Amino acid sequence: MLKLNILFGGFMDLFNETLENIEPLYDDKIVLAKKRLDSLAKPIGSLGELEEISWRMAGITGKINNNIKKKNTIIMCADNGVIEEGVSSCPKNLTAVVTENFTKGLSGVCVLSSQAKADITIVDIGVDYDFNNKHVINKKIAYGTKNMKKGPAMTKEEAIKAIEVGIEIVDDLVKKGYNLFGTGEMGIGNTSTSTAVLSVLLDMDPDYLCGKGSGITDKMLENKKNVIKKSIEFNNPDKDDILDVISKVGGFDIAGLCGCFLGAAKNRVPIVIDGLISSVAALCAYRLNKNAREFMFPSHLSMEPGAEYIMKELNMRPFLHMEMRLGEGSGCPLAFNIIESALAVINNMKTFEELKMETDYLIDIR
Amino acid sequence: MLKLNILFGGFMDLFNETLENIEPLYDDKIVLAKKRLDSLAKPIGSLGELEEISWRMAGITGKINNNIKKKNTIIMCADNGVIEEGVSSCPKNLTAVVTENFTKGLSGVCVLSSQAKADITIVDIGVDYDFNNKHVINKKIAYGTKNMKKGPAMTKEEAIKAIEVGIEIVDDLVKKGYNLFGTGEMGIGNTSTSTAVLSVLLDMDPDYLCGKGSGITDKMLENKKNVIKKSIEFNNPDKDDILDVISKVGGFDIAGLCGCFLGAAKNRVPIVIDGLISSVAALCAYRLNKNAREFMFPSHLSMEPGAEYIMKELNMRPFLHMEMRLGEGSGCPLAFNIIESALAVINNMKTFEELKMETDYLIDIR
Repeated sequence: MLKLNILFGGFMDLFNETLENIEPLYDDKIVLAKKRLDSLAKPIGSLGELEEISWRMAGITGKINNNIKKKNTIIMCADNGVIEEGVSSCPKNLTAVVTENFTKGLSGVCVLSSQAKADITIVDIGVDYDFNNKHVINKKIAYGTKNMKKGPAMTKEEAIKAIEVGIEIVDDLVKKGYNLFGTGEMGIGNTSTSTAVLSVLLDMDPDYLCGKGSGITDKMLENKKNVIKKSIEFNNPDKDDILDVISKVGGFDIAGLCGCFLGAAKNRVPIVIDGLISSVAALCAYRLNKNAREFMFPSHLSMEPGAEYIMKELNMRPFLHMEMRLGEGSGCPLAFNIIESALAVINNMKTFEELKMETDYLIDIR
Repeated sequence: MLKLNILFGGFMDLFNETLENIEPLYDDKIVLAKKRLDSLAKPIGSLGELEEISWRMAGITGKINNNIKKKNTIIMCADNGVIEEGVSSCPKNLTAVVTENFTKGLSGVCVLSSQAKADITIVDIGVDYDFNNKHVINKKIAYGTKNMKKGPAMTKEEAIKAIEVGIEIVDDLVKKGYNLFGTGEMGIGNTSTSTAVLSVLLDMDPDYLCGKGSGITDKMLENKKNVIKKSIEFNNPDKDDILDVISKVGGFDIAGLCGCFLGAAKNRVPIVIDGLISSVAALCAYRLNKNAREFMFPSHLSMEPGAEYIMKELNMRPFLHMEMRLGEGSGCPLAFNIIESALAVINNMKTFEELKMETDYLIDIR
């Protein structure tokens, strides 16, 4: 660590500073919010997860009543060297093409964000292409990672740098008034890297975690599992060292999104988890600082088998069961609406007393 | 039937006419919509249920591109005679109080509807109270049903009349330009009547289906199960005769909502299912005319144990898993947003060709 500090002093500072500045929720505000929710004119707890969202938001911001001003899904785009092992049916340059398409506003996450009146931020954190597009933020760490089957995907320094990109992006958007974030990604091969990271973190065989990503044959799935196993064996990452795991078998997108989760927690702003890659990044952030979990909200249960295990460790129940597996952050705009609905409950519903109901009802309904 | 036709000719006409005028989906339009969805710039099927919503909407309206103009959740309010058996912890007059509160716009379904820019329609279909409130539509069949443990809850004629109220309300709202409906209810004791109807329709012991409604003790739950069993035994409804089941162990709210589902299907307008009571009404409508199912969309999985079995028979997977159990139609506004998001996908996403991607990608991504 000392050596890293000397070599990458400036960068390490932001990473460590962020980790040190993630505080727990405001418990006293949660108590007040729960009291308010329990007094509203409805059977106690009958709005389920909507109520949990309401009180957790109070714990995040320190205010009982919250309003979402501006929403933004941050999309980390990066290439993965492992693609040369035939783990995906998509050509590698699709990463660049789809990244460019985000700027046209017509992809899945774009139209869903537009419907939710939410913005997107497109970050090139490691695409193997030089964009000439002002809507793509250039934070390129490298032109894609290296093939993890043959060695570490990136250096530890690159991993830290990528995490710090995520923190910086969030810091910047918070300054611009955004107070609800989503997390998305684009990177051919990134269900392979995510599953590799997850296998190590959960100490589970990739066989149980590996899915078909954007769609591959059964034969390709066997190869994908095998590539993931070999990559883990070859690199032998230390499961208790998140930076070691991300750098050896992860991707720039995972690292960048991990930074977004840490940055959101530091800034005390809620951030929504999307599919597998985003969930893996959330788990990394949680393992780096347990408090980070409290600022995260789930969206949907991804079709990728690994997602369920992450939700279990994070003790989260995804709101939506829509059999979605697009990625891009496409589940986030749907969750934004649910979160805003939850805030409407605590902000606008009235108590029995306020509705001038007789005290009898107040007692009897419970 | 002949006798009924003579006695209640005018009423029977609307009921039978509606049943006879529920047609299947437009299969040719579904094919076109699926073709469009499969050509969009994303892995095939990767937006899961959002895609099914899109193509089912095409089958409903006959148009590939649909827009929601106005949304409305219809709330059927009614009292249940069985309440005198101690099946609920709420006092009976809470039905009237909450019905009145809907008009103040501050209850659960109200604030969630407001958030979703949706309207509500409050129908007194059998509350034991005379409202002096222009926002409550008076369609009262009676001042509550009779106690089903001691005899039929209502006559068959009343059941038909209540179903026709639902049809009329929908017919009227369709004329006013609403093209997406939700279904809600308010009626102390209505999880008991709903569970009784469901037990008969599924030929299942109430023990497996009965939940705690708005919240009762374990001891009260045992009594509730017992009351439901006794009511079914005493009335011995014919499970293949929906009108017999509803009239003997149902409620005006269930019948009215059943009418809403039939009316929406006849008018070829989508309609959203909420919690247990709404689900039971949907099942009744489906059993009366199988085509009715095609116009229904689920919202959330209710905490009431019976809801799951209904979703299974209807072959529906609820979008939201939010541990909600408020009723009132509170799940509908959340589902409205999901449906509108699904329409944004088919309306606004572009194909690979339209995005000027090379044909290579089109082939490789599948």
